[in-house]
Amino acid sequence: MLSPNNCSHSPQTRFDLVQVNGAWTRQTEQGQGAEGKLSHAKIYEKKSEHGVSWTVVSPIVFTYRVIQCQNLLDPSNDTLLWGHLGGEERKEAAAKSKPVKRFIVIDEVVHRLYGSQVLGYFESRDVVCKILPLPTTEENKCMELVTRILEEVHEFGLDRRSEPIIAIGGGVCLDVVGLAASLYRRRTPYIRVPTTVLAYVDASVGAKTGVNFAGGKNKLGSYVPPAATFLDRSFFQTLPMRQISNGMAEMLKMALMKHPGLFQLLEAEGRRLLDTKLQPVGTDSSGHEDSAAASTRIAIETMLEELAPNLWEDDLDRLVDFGHLISPELEMRVLPALLHGEAVNIDMSFMVYVAHQRGLLTAEEKQRIIQCMLGLELPVWHQDCTLALIHKSLQERLRHSGGSLRIPLPTGLGQAEIFHDMVEENVLSQAYEKWTNELAPSGTC
Amino acid sequence: MLSPNNCSHSPQTRFDLVQVNGAWTRQTEQGQGAEGKLSHAKIYEKKSEHGVSWTVVSPIVFTYRVIQCQNLLDPSNDTLLWGHLGGEERKEAAAKSKPVKRFIVIDEVVHRLYGSQVLGYFESRDVVCKILPLPTTEENKCMELVTRILEEVHEFGLDRRSEPIIAIGGGVCLDVVGLAASLYRRRTPYIRVPTTVLAYVDASVGAKTGVNFAGGKNKLGSYVPPAATFLDRSFFQTLPMRQISNGMAEMLKMALMKHPGLFQLLEAEGRRLLDTKLQPVGTDSSGHEDSAAASTRIAIETMLEELAPNLWEDDLDRLVDFGHLISPELEMRVLPALLHGEAVNIDMSFMVYVAHQRGLLTAEEKQRIIQCMLGLELPVWHQDCTLALIHKSLQERLRHSGGSLRIPLPTGLGQAEIFHDMVEENVLSQAYEKWTNELAPSGTC
Repeated sequence: MLSPNNCSHSPQTRFDLVQVNGAWTRQTEQGQGAEGKLSHAKIYEKKSEHGVSWTVVSPIVFTYRVIQCQNLLDPSNDTLLWGHLGGEERKEAAAKSKPVKRFIVIDEVVHRLYGSQVLGYFESRDVVCKILPLPTTEENKCMELVTRILEEVHEFGLDRRSEPIIAIGGGVCLDVVGLAASLYRRRTPYIRVPTTVLAYVDASVGAKTGVNFAGGKNKLGSYVPPAATFLDRSFFQTLPMRQISNGMAEMLKMALMKHPGLFQLLEAEGRRLLDTKLQPVGTDSSGHEDSAAASTRIAIETMLEELAPNLWEDDLDRLVDFGHLISPELEMRVLPALLHGEAVNIDMSFMVYVAHQRGLLTAEEKQRIIQCMLGLELPVWHQDCTLALIHKSLQERLRHSGGSLRIPLPTGLGQAEIFHDMVEENVLSQAYEKWTNELAPSGTC
Repeated sequence: MLSPNNCSHSPQTRFDLVQVNGAWTRQTEQGQGAEGKLSHAKIYEKKSEHGVSWTVVSPIVFTYRVIQCQNLLDPSNDTLLWGHLGGEERKEAAAKSKPVKRFIVIDEVVHRLYGSQVLGYFESRDVVCKILPLPTTEENKCMELVTRILEEVHEFGLDRRSEPIIAIGGGVCLDVVGLAASLYRRRTPYIRVPTTVLAYVDASVGAKTGVNFAGGKNKLGSYVPPAATFLDRSFFQTLPMRQISNGMAEMLKMALMKHPGLFQLLEAEGRRLLDTKLQPVGTDSSGHEDSAAASTRIAIETMLEELAPNLWEDDLDRLVDFGHLISPELEMRVLPALLHGEAVNIDMSFMVYVAHQRGLLTAEEKQRIIQCMLGLELPVWHQDCTLALIHKSLQERLRHSGGSLRIPLPTGLGQAEIFHDMVEENVLSQAYEKWTNELAPSGTC
């Protein structure tokens, strides 16, 4: 992990870094000098006739919490205020005499529904707070919104180490606030409270922040994880059904890529999960996890598995990119008609046909996946998803993934592989023809 | 390093992450299952009656090169084009058939002096390039300049993994381009080519990027190091003398904090280094390093030592903050009358008086430091650096460094300590009085 990729032939010296009396000093392995704190960082030095060259290798460790909870806005629940800290840190923070401050950005629709509860929470706990409701829609997801937040944060004033900015809303809200926080004083901690299913299983879990730019989706952003994400499914109760379906597309993605059990769950109970808005059903005193709890938990666990080892996307082979090859182009074309999960589902639906055409999926498996999508009330075809748009998307993909397509395709129900080669032209056009013939509403083509 | 700070008492399970057939799976230490690639990331899981909570611990390793070279703009020199890569990677990149692209941002003053050489370099190597000259002054160091760069980069089109953005100029240019690059597609590699002494020994070496915001210096930014920094002292030949002094303030900072040898060098030869603009003197065929080469090398080595173990400034105790406690406030007040290094020197000069007042420095040591500063033609006092401004600066410092002042003070010639307590009021006012009496131009007060 810590050796630089450097194969020039002049001799190279490796230095450890040891802190002695507050100053860091370089030490070679041989010359163990003064004792002190050893850093994980290393400096490699090489001398030539032109001068010295140094290679710095420095690891940064990101730590963040993802916490399921209930009654997040209940004033007796500590989580929203202190859940980002460990037990010891929490005691220290609570022991400080100065007033606690929190800056909260909340989507304006969420604010209409939960604003008074949020305010009540902080007021009842004597927190000096500023609540900023914003229209965090895909159309507004741009640097101007980030700047707006930064101006307000700056005016409010925060301790950049101990007073996290809290974002409450859907994916756009969490992405925009995440970017603002990662920019402010080069890094201010922030907290994600997702209120949509999509944000709950997707935007909440990783390190990505971002805004759209120059007609491109999430072209600007950073990889800085939140201090914590607090997951409370009760927000889903006030979502329209379409938003529930929207989020379940990303759950289905994880099911198709790597979890047969989650696929079976969504196939068997998807419709019911949708109807009950992923809420706990009845009063289950048996202590058993209900299927809404199980499916969201598995979706998050599988996402965390894929994201944690690859937080900065150094590895371009990503199963979680399934459904995200064609959808960005499609979204930029048809916004706001399609929601993100809907565009992802259309992408996945087409890719299922590609996988079938390539002999990776049987006709029956293909059929079961499409049926499951329909059961979740997700669109499986779109007239703007033309063969030309698909070609353009794959070209874009090629350009930005190191010259290799790296296309994740299902190879069964709950398993997948990443294919590096270009999809053959005839496979693509035949898959497209079948996809359109079988799934386009009659009369469209 | 990899254990989360979590001392709640419910049982916690630690999962390793192992990649099997392209998918990451969680494994407990006990249940060693399938074999595969092991990640350094860990996931800790805890279950309670409210649900599951996960703590993700994920290390990211930053690797960057700092390379001294000569004749950087000579078309026969590979460095500017390929110096950011190791030998193996370089061969791979050069073997690719597609044309090489580079986007270059250059300070407009530097462009007038070196623009045709830069263009000549890339043209002679058949590189598809876009050169963007910009007025990268402290007054223009804002988000609008970042956006301007991003628009041009987006229009030009870059492979975000293999085509670094190149910044050629002073510290402002390098900071602004660094921020643009770190935002574009969440991270595009960039290269720093410092043309001022200040940028050479300071901005070039670490991970910080940034712009001013809402009246505050570098209030927005990121910690993303360049792929590489190329150091060529020949640019200094066209600098005005004041710019040479300006950069030597940061060299003196490192000398005072941790390197007696560098202090002696600057004390004995500072005047001559200034007069020769840190250029090689004569043709030294003995192979001995001249004092200009030695002093810049030591300044960089000591900076790298301090920055590499603390790239994201998780540790707030930083020796390199010397000279940077009062100077930000002073700079925002008197810009553009003072250059950065000048403001830093005024701050250091005052702190030397504080150190003396506290008994950390003898009168003779204090005197030698001030004489050295004067020899480097650096200002040692400023009328706008009032006691009120000093108080305000220390309050700001306290607010942003976790409730402790963490003030680095010299405790000898080339050694220092970080003091956590507040400076006593009488020490501060007595130091201020002496500082003003001894250093203010007569007739000022």
